Parts: sequence; C-alpha cells; structure tokens
Amino acid sequence: MSAYDNLKFNSEGLIPAIVQDAASGRVLMMAWMNRASLEATVSTGKTHFWSRSRKKFWMKGESSGHVQIVKYIAFDCDGDTLLIQAEQTGAACHEGYRSCFFRSFEDGGAKARVTEKQLQTPEEIYGKK
Amino acid sequence: MSAYDNLKFNSEGLIPAIVQDAASGRVLMMAWMNRASLEATVSTGKTHFWSRSRKKFWMKGESSGHVQIVKYIAFDCDGDTLLIQAEQTGAACHEGYRSCFFRSFEDGGAKARVTEKQLQTPEEIYGKK
Repeated sequence: MSAYDNLKFNSEGLIPAIVQDAASGRVLMMAWMNRASLEATVSTGKTHFWSRSRKKFWMKGESSGHVQIVKYIAFDCDGDTLLIQAEQTGAACHEGYRSCFFRSFEDGGAKARVTEKQLQTPEEIYGKK
Repeated sequence: MSAYDNLKFNSEGLIPAIVQDAASGRVLMMAWMNRASLEATVSTGKTHFWSRSRKKFWMKGESSGHVQIVKYIAFDCDGDTLLIQAEQTGAACHEGYRSCFFRSFEDGGAKARVTEKQLQTPEEIYGKK
C-alpha cells in the first residue's frame, strides 16, 4: 500500500502540514498542501504548499529564498495531518522570525508575548512594497 | 490586547492545535479546539479539544489517563494555528504510540514505514470493546 493511500484530504482537497526544524526540533510553521503540492514536495525534496488565501500553488522560499529541504515526511494515525522534518534556510516566517510561532500566551491569555528575536524585517526579505 | 484577540477561528469556530512534548520536542498530535476548549485548556492546565467526528468537547486523557499538562501556548503569525508544549503521560496516540506521527513516507511515498514502538495496544488502554 502506498503511503498516499493512508492520507485523507479534506473536502477542499487539502491536508495540514506541520514543518519542524530537523536539527533543533523547533516547530516552524503549519501550512496546507493539496495532492499536487505534496507530490512536488516528495519529488523535489523542497516543501510546496497550497495557499488558501491566494488560491495558489507555491514553493516555500520562492520569493524569500528561505527554502525548506525535506528530511522526513510522517503522517498521523488518522491520516489527516502531515509532519515534515526539514532543514530551514533563514526565517520560516514571512514576518522575519525563525518560527511562525513567535508569540505566546502570557497571564492566562490576558497578554501575548514575543518570545523570539526577529532575524530580518519583511522589507529586508521581500523588498519594499 | 488579550492573546485571544490575535486568534482566528475558522468558519466552524475551530483552530488547529499542535501538541509537542515539552521535554523531547517530539510532535505528539494535532487536534482541533474551539474557544471553550482553549479556555478550559488555559484554566485547568490540561489540554481540551473539540472532536469533529464525535461533535464533542473532550479532555485529552479522560478515558485513557494519558493527560497532557500544558507548559506553554504559542500561536502563529496568522493567528490561525496553536502550538502547545506539554508534558505527556503515556501514549499520546489512541493506537498506543507515543506520538500519533508514528508512520512515515518511504521510497518517495511508495510505502509507509512504522518508526516507533507501540507502547500499549488500544485494548490495554481502553479495555475490550
């Protein structure tokens, strides 16, 4: 049985993919894949996703250069979530942080706290708009 | 601004929550929360979710005893995914594995491979059905 046969894409044909830094274990981001972006991820060894807001197939790093080299693709017991271990170049987050999860709950959610250093500004990554 | 004000629940009132072992960094599972389950998670310090299949509010470990003690709740740049660091008692997976992500792609997805030892059978956890 192919690994793909275990997967359940949702009614929009999408599956969430968690990307984790293979070296540090830091969870970097979560984004959505369709079957084509998963196949491109497998065949090229670089993560590809489906943007729900832009309705667009995209390769992580295509604008920023911050590509993710895939080391390992796992899927969960229900087959409805992927976990990808990758080598991250630069910042995973479009806001210039290593991880998209750079803010956390503080005081029982009364406040949010930034827990990471910003590596670059979005302007430094993408240029001025 | 409250941390909650940064969050975007989807059209069903849900947000995905990635649970990561606080000690090892292993990603254990991904499940969905509504506002009430997130508030219960914050107030009790144990993870609570919303089951989309059973349409039911549930505490992780309520049947199995495999509770998750919350150490840290982060959210991503778009505010549409949570990352929870927790101390896991026993197996996170209802199939008896430490992590739900116990299978991985092999040979470019041609096969799936089990990468973890099963700690308990489901019958040992939940009793015979």
